[in-house]
Amino acid sequence: MGNGDINRYPAVSRVCTLKWERQVLRLIDQRSLPFKEMYVSCRSVENVAEAIKDMVVRGAPAIGVAAGYGIALAALQFKGKNKEKFIIHIDESIKLLSGARPTAINLFWALDRMRDVLDENKNLEIEKIREKLIEKAIEIEKQDLEINRKIGHHGKKLFKEVKGNIRILTHCNAGALATSGYGTALAVIRSLSAESKVANVIVDETRPFLQGARLTAWELYQEKIPFFIISDNMAGYFMSKGDVDAVLVGADRIASNGDTANKIGTLSLSILAEYYRIPFYVAAPISTIDMKIKSGDNIPIEYRDKREVREILGKVIIPDFMAVENPAFDVTPADKITAIITENGVVYPPYKKTLAKFLKMDKQGN
Amino acid sequence: MGNGDINRYPAVSRVCTLKWERQVLRLIDQRSLPFKEMYVSCRSVENVAEAIKDMVVRGAPAIGVAAGYGIALAALQFKGKNKEKFIIHIDESIKLLSGARPTAINLFWALDRMRDVLDENKNLEIEKIREKLIEKAIEIEKQDLEINRKIGHHGKKLFKEVKGNIRILTHCNAGALATSGYGTALAVIRSLSAESKVANVIVDETRPFLQGARLTAWELYQEKIPFFIISDNMAGYFMSKGDVDAVLVGADRIASNGDTANKIGTLSLSILAEYYRIPFYVAAPISTIDMKIKSGDNIPIEYRDKREVREILGKVIIPDFMAVENPAFDVTPADKITAIITENGVVYPPYKKTLAKFLKMDKQGN
Repeated sequence: MGNGDINRYPAVSRVCTLKWERQVLRLIDQRSLPFKEMYVSCRSVENVAEAIKDMVVRGAPAIGVAAGYGIALAALQFKGKNKEKFIIHIDESIKLLSGARPTAINLFWALDRMRDVLDENKNLEIEKIREKLIEKAIEIEKQDLEINRKIGHHGKKLFKEVKGNIRILTHCNAGALATSGYGTALAVIRSLSAESKVANVIVDETRPFLQGARLTAWELYQEKIPFFIISDNMAGYFMSKGDVDAVLVGADRIASNGDTANKIGTLSLSILAEYYRIPFYVAAPISTIDMKIKSGDNIPIEYRDKREVREILGKVIIPDFMAVENPAFDVTPADKITAIITENGVVYPPYKKTLAKFLKMDKQGN
Repeated sequence: MGNGDINRYPAVSRVCTLKWERQVLRLIDQRSLPFKEMYVSCRSVENVAEAIKDMVVRGAPAIGVAAGYGIALAALQFKGKNKEKFIIHIDESIKLLSGARPTAINLFWALDRMRDVLDENKNLEIEKIREKLIEKAIEIEKQDLEINRKIGHHGKKLFKEVKGNIRILTHCNAGALATSGYGTALAVIRSLSAESKVANVIVDETRPFLQGARLTAWELYQEKIPFFIISDNMAGYFMSKGDVDAVLVGADRIASNGDTANKIGTLSLSILAEYYRIPFYVAAPISTIDMKIKSGDNIPIEYRDKREVREILGKVIIPDFMAVENPAFDVTPADKITAIITENGVVYPPYKKTLAKFLKMDKQGN
């Protein structure tokens, strides 16, 4: 169906971010959306690593789900009978996927889950371990969708006191395409919209990769949720006019003190929101929280290919001999975040205390 | 020479923003720079109005200079002998040009100067008035260049206390191309660079029109001043890393209280700069100061053609059926501005008092 005709966008409802087809992981190619609907078929862990690196699939939760299937594919790729070699092969596959992108923690979280399955089932036959790895990958995907719906449910409560319909500013894509479906920040917007409470979504185009203009706008358009797209540098203007009731974004990694890495530009929005006294919400699954690190200073920031800044959808705007930089993420300090919306409820500052407590309760099954 | 080959940029040194050739105003077409060097020839006031509207020529001071020549052309266009009709024709031409763009005050300032010439010489022959109008337009251009050099001279003094070489972040283009040459914000950078004091200029690409990536970067490249280009939403990241010693921008209109309209995105930079305790400087000729208005609330903000957001250098990134907005300017509150650099010196807060005093001294010839 991908015909390049911008008037014939594929419908989101029938689009899957990713689809597991036994021996193949099918990924919608997010680099060419919404202009073309194309799919990349991954038949090996190497294919999946490449797809993550090249942003065929992006968005922290979606990367995690894809990584799980990457290990399932690795298990399927192994043809021998030697279990030791099998385990080494899976270990190396985990290492390969770990190197695909450095910032989003969900990648490492999903790989840890896969490693747990390996560790817990070392005594079984290769065939059995393989089955368990595939099952776990499928489970991670299914859980992600469920998590997103819960995020939507908890998030909408934050807007109870807003008078009239709500105007939300969002950055990048934290939607169905960033997850296995429904989204994180967009889950909250979908929930609010289901109750007809969304007046407007202001969508940052999100240079350099245009996830806002290409992906978020497309999702909102299909859902008939009112929105308009702006250049990233217009956000302050609309805040200054009083046109924004809340800023709502996803997250790639949340440190134990609440500092949050997300798409480049999120930091600026958080400082602007604080200045204009606009609530700034982060919506993310618990798997995004990295209790192992103290603060945002410990989150590695990925610098991506400079061509992403030099070219826009293949059109060169800056030639090779001019210097550019392309940091893909920034860190929003915890003190700028009004609340973090997770599948198990909303967490408020001071995050240094509340996040630890919240995760402890979570582990106890509360 | 305009051949579209990005490896063969025209050299700035031989490029004129505008050139008066007796009966024709030649404007370099800033929409196609730096990829193509093309010129637009204006032979009538209507041509000039269109060129300003369509951003063939842009940048507050350059618009002012072009408008002066627009009236010179209007005077040349008039073929009759009836002085009353001549005066009406010039009046209507002033009105036409006034409607070309609403935000930058320099347009109105230049038109006021032209009207003064008309008013003061009403008793002369048409031919004589025409000569005086042309002379004034040429004078405005010459003065602008002189003003810019003085801005550079005064501005560099602000950096005396910076240890080591200076890292400046700039937005949009306040360079030679925004003026009749040399620039305002870029005049300061040129002055500092002449003393080898510039470590790096961080250039915001400045969506939607890419004045930073296309024009500022090109000017810096030609001058061999070190720089790198970033997406607008990366500015906060580099400030947070401590990589910015000062933000330096031009202005389209400064209200009597110091509130400053400039290219969309400037407001956000000023809030970020305040947060990170980075000095935020505005460089502009005195003609940019509009003492008739109390505050930034009274500055009209131009909303431009949405295609500027939808398309990047002709490449469609957002189709017509998706809503976008395109405010072209925002207003930086006076309390965010560390100093305003003019041709007659540097003005410091509180601007409500200091600007009035400064302009009074200016009129007294101090």
